Amino acid sequence: MKTYKIASIPGDGIGKEVVPAAIRVLREVENIHGGLKFEVSEYPWGSEYYLEHQQMMPEDGLGTLKHFDAIFLGAVGNPDIVPDHISLWELLINIRRSFEQVINIRPARTFAGLSSKLANSEDFDFIVVRENSEGEYSEAGGTIHQGGDKVAIQNAIFSRKGTERAMKFAFELAEQRRNKVTSATKSNGIYHTMPFWDEVFKDVSDNFPEVQTEKEHIDALAASFVTRPERFDVIVASNLFGDILTDIGAAIMGSVGIAPAANINMNGKYPSMFEPVHGSAPDIEGKGMANPIGQIWTAKMMLDHFGETEIADQLLTAIESVIRKGIVTQDIGGKATTTEVTDEIIQQLAEVT
Amino acid sequence: MKTYKIASIPGDGIGKEVVPAAIRVLREVENIHGGLKFEVSEYPWGSEYYLEHQQMMPEDGLGTLKHFDAIFLGAVGNPDIVPDHISLWELLINIRRSFEQVINIRPARTFAGLSSKLANSEDFDFIVVRENSEGEYSEAGGTIHQGGDKVAIQNAIFSRKGTERAMKFAFELAEQRRNKVTSATKSNGIYHTMPFWDEVFKDVSDNFPEVQTEKEHIDALAASFVTRPERFDVIVASNLFGDILTDIGAAIMGSVGIAPAANINMNGKYPSMFEPVHGSAPDIEGKGMANPIGQIWTAKMMLDHFGETEIADQLLTAIESVIRKGIVTQDIGGKATTTEVTDEIIQQLAEVT
Ligand SMILES: CC(C)[C@H](C(=O)O)[C@@H](O)C(=O)O
Ligand SMILES: CC(C)[C@H](C(=O)O)[C@@H](O)C(=O)O
Repeated sequence: MKTYKIASIPGDGIGKEVVPAAIRVLREVENIHGGLKFEVSEYPWGSEYYLEHQQMMPEDGLGTLKHFDAIFLGAVGNPDIVPDHISLWELLINIRRSFEQVINIRPARTFAGLSSKLANSEDFDFIVVRENSEGEYSEAGGTIHQGGDKVAIQNAIFSRKGTERAMKFAFELAEQRRNKVTSATKSNGIYHTMPFWDEVFKDVSDNFPEVQTEKEHIDALAASFVTRPERFDVIVASNLFGDILTDIGAAIMGSVGIAPAANINMNGKYPSMFEPVHGSAPDIEGKGMANPIGQIWTAKMMLDHFGETEIADQLLTAIESVIRKGIVTQDIGGKATTTEVTDEIIQQLAEVT
Repeated sequence: MKTYKIASIPGDGIGKEVVPAAIRVLREVENIHGGLKFEVSEYPWGSEYYLEHQQMMPEDGLGTLKHFDAIFLGAVGNPDIVPDHISLWELLINIRRSFEQVINIRPARTFAGLSSKLANSEDFDFIVVRENSEGEYSEAGGTIHQGGDKVAIQNAIFSRKGTERAMKFAFELAEQRRNKVTSATKSNGIYHTMPFWDEVFKDVSDNFPEVQTEKEHIDALAASFVTRPERFDVIVASNLFGDILTDIGAAIMGSVGIAPAANINMNGKYPSMFEPVHGSAPDIEGKGMANPIGQIWTAKMMLDHFGETEIADQLLTAIESVIRKGIVTQDIGGKATTTEVTDEIIQQLAEVT
């Protein structure tokens, strides 16, 4: 019996609906696969927790999470309750940084039966490798003066080590795929860090002579996601550019509600975290409208990370078949509720295995 | 006779094809409208000029440009010849900053006969007001260490004055349109400058109680441009976010080749600059494939800026009718060359007036 210890943090908004849905799917995985067990501990941390405790998670929250095999997170943020920069830096970004989850992997692809938001688009299938530990997301900076003279300064900080690491990861991934890496840059406008980014990309690419490379400025690249997504295989991007590109990737798939993500710790010292691309969407909370596919596909990435690739593939097949049958939520053209989609995925999973 | 003195800078790549095309249209405007004259002086500045002179424009380039009523620019950048951060900061960004062109206005809308890149999208019609003088585009920063330890630091700098000015402009524009302003933020990830951005947005919006407001994080907003562009009226964005959003806006319209832009000097001390959203696209230079509509629509914005709104509207009507007839370049589904599209716009202009 292989047991995986999972810390689940539903978080805010629809996180509280889609995480339980995905856990139900994991229970079915246990049913099917006699040799697997998921020990799930749920932590009610998030904006409501903040209201009571003036912090997003307990003082020893990281100490608690540290011992798990993985963290399974829904979504964080509810600006009506806690300012976003506080809620995110205390919880989501805090975990990413403290647990050295330096890479964020985010796939996007077409599915049979799911019309892309794009007109007449060809099939596409790409993965964005997002640098997840530094760059534009930084606490360095501050404000000077007050009132009409106030000036805010933000430092973006790119290290050779962090940049190289993300790029190397992207190239190795491309080698297992279609051998192409696109670098998201903006060296024409962002004067210091982006020419540096280009320089590292050039150096890393020299070690992968078989991999085709290209660089594109983020503005043109964002447009290319809309006009010709089929031309991408692996895209490597900074923290901010990766964030933006993956929401566009999710949108062209059909909805931000279906895109999965994995925050990967690469040195084995801390757990990785699995968290879909979409946000907490407090406006649709409690209506049963939330698309659970993003969170369930994210669970699939967690299974892959555990090395349980066979059942992970079966789970993806189940998702594909439910999408093909059109038993989906409103955001992607269906009428089903969160629970109905989840039930159907569970049933399909039982059938494909 | 009203005479406007225009400095034309075709720049690099397809800039050298679309600027002459748009100037031909301006000549037709003169023909039609007996009382108007455009005195155009062309300056061959750009990456090829750099090869010869080790600079993108002459020492006294700004002094030369200063006396014109407007600058009409194609596109700058050819990374095979000059690194992008040099070519852009010495020419395009240099002009924007030195001439205090603090606002960049960039409309996007659907056209009859032009299918959007989006499936089943409703008609949309929005304008992005891009802060054009500060923010993420900054020379402040640098690198420390060398080799494997190298670290690059980029300062984004937002002043109260610059931020307020862009927002006020957006609200005043919205008052003439559909009374809605969306703020592009990222205060959940960008720790210092974006909460500041939100704070200024809140303050400015208090002065426009009739205008409906919303703020959306840049990732979700970029996705919304793809999934529900019809819900936007005016969007106000920082320099970088505005840059990214307007390429997406251009892409959903059908092609980056048709989107126009205006870099506005607001204090009357220096000329404004008119330059389309698209880049220099050196890969398609000289093939007659470049879409001239972006540059010609940009000329329309220049006419508006001169206060020649009647002929400006007629020019837009001519563009609309050419698009409706499908006499367009390949990027938007036609077979016509740059010259054929331009000829057709000139002919339509003669007909509508
Ligand atoms: C060429 C580049 C520096 C420029 C920018 O980023 O401002 C361009 O993309 C634009 O949008 O005008
Ligand atoms: C919530 C926010 C801080 C976060 C990010 O920007 O990283 C989210 O958008 C994501 O993509 O995981």
